[in-house]
Amino acid sequence: MDYVALSGEKPSTVRKLIREGKWKLPTSGLSNGYTQANLVILPEKYAYDFLLFCQRNPRPCPLLEVLDTGNPFVELTATHADIRTDIPKYRIYKKGILGEEVADIGPVWQSDFVSFLIGCSFSFEQALLDNDVPVRQIEEKCNVPMFRTNIPCKPAGIFEGPLVVSMRPMTEQQAIRAIQVTSRFPSVHGAPIHFGNPEKLGIRDLSHPDFGDAVTVRDGEIPVFWACGVTPQAAVMASHPDIAITHAPGHMFITDRKDTAFSIL
Amino acid sequence: MDYVALSGEKPSTVRKLIREGKWKLPTSGLSNGYTQANLVILPEKYAYDFLLFCQRNPRPCPLLEVLDTGNPFVELTATHADIRTDIPKYRIYKKGILGEEVADIGPVWQSDFVSFLIGCSFSFEQALLDNDVPVRQIEEKCNVPMFRTNIPCKPAGIFEGPLVVSMRPMTEQQAIRAIQVTSRFPSVHGAPIHFGNPEKLGIRDLSHPDFGDAVTVRDGEIPVFWACGVTPQAAVMASHPDIAITHAPGHMFITDRKDTAFSIL
Repeated sequence: MDYVALSGEKPSTVRKLIREGKWKLPTSGLSNGYTQANLVILPEKYAYDFLLFCQRNPRPCPLLEVLDTGNPFVELTATHADIRTDIPKYRIYKKGILGEEVADIGPVWQSDFVSFLIGCSFSFEQALLDNDVPVRQIEEKCNVPMFRTNIPCKPAGIFEGPLVVSMRPMTEQQAIRAIQVTSRFPSVHGAPIHFGNPEKLGIRDLSHPDFGDAVTVRDGEIPVFWACGVTPQAAVMASHPDIAITHAPGHMFITDRKDTAFSIL
Repeated sequence: MDYVALSGEKPSTVRKLIREGKWKLPTSGLSNGYTQANLVILPEKYAYDFLLFCQRNPRPCPLLEVLDTGNPFVELTATHADIRTDIPKYRIYKKGILGEEVADIGPVWQSDFVSFLIGCSFSFEQALLDNDVPVRQIEEKCNVPMFRTNIPCKPAGIFEGPLVVSMRPMTEQQAIRAIQVTSRFPSVHGAPIHFGNPEKLGIRDLSHPDFGDAVTVRDGEIPVFWACGVTPQAAVMASHPDIAITHAPGHMFITDRKDTAFSIL
């Protein structure tokens, strides 16, 4: 099994392979056209603050689904999916510190866990490619570069922190098209939040991202910045909850919903 | 002071008049172009379930702002606004039963109250008018007709209930334009959820709405249905919370945000 073989498979098939331990790699490109989601799991005592944080910061924190307390079964965005096993790799944080990476969180599952599935820019990147807008980190086969900005999120209870953005370089003409294309996807980050001078966001060096990998910015290209799903994870870790579980970077939850279902036009 | 005089006034001016008891009537048409919001206030013990209900049902329950527990001062959508006094008329429900209607909820304010401001179709109706789509209840100077449907909302905790829709009659050509126009406003109900045969939504008689007033459907017109902000209020009342406070119908909170700020295109 490889990426090419699984790119056309149904999400339920790929989730089953993941659940059985037969696929342990990043999920980019699998079940092409279906929405992939970030995961944050928190004990119920933090859930209201986190839900409010997402409500107040919808651009970086577009919630796709919130499971009932203690329920590990996805209801709205997928069927027959178990959030404890259907992601290839999880990260377990205690007091905000990364501990283990595991392939199955069944052994550490708690009856007070609330699982949050959050939209991801994978959903609009296919739309960019379909519109001949380059997605450099795909061309360069690396992770998208992400930067902490000087823009504070709206705090909610114990959660606060800076807006984290992802960056894709392109020409001005491509940026205009990218603004049009991504505006159609308000529930997966939507339109960019800035283009051009990174210093206006407090970003000093595009070649040293805070998360992910640096990509080439070619002559004649400008950086374009989108609100990024790393924002809520960073806010969670900074608040040092007793325990928090997330997907490992690039190892996402594959939903049964098509990317186009999240476009409003 | 009349509607015409106040239609061009700033929201802060109108809120001050309301706060001082100098304006006690419905707010439709005041501070034209600025977004008006529905209000639901609940004790904190119900707030997580209600926030989750809104997250799961974003079409009828588009949250504009949620205030911190006990805080009566609006932060994000208006400045110098007090949610206890800045609405002309409130309704106080106990165990789901309507009790008093009052102009000031200061005397009954509780330190555990959480205030939810929810988007309202006023925001897209101006855009419809600007695009020569008729808004019949404005022409006929009455309230929009609203109907319970046979579509259940996604439940959350103690909250559940049917989707409530508002109806505006128009020609097919106008409906096509209305779909385009309202799609631009996903955070204030967005595109219609149905047009044509009301029976597909379980609505038997368009001339007997469950809320609001009946309006004329002319020859050659079809009914067009949008998710309605009465949905969350109905779900709250059906769950019989100890206490809940809402605005009185038509007596909305006027924000400092322009309607166009909620359009994504």
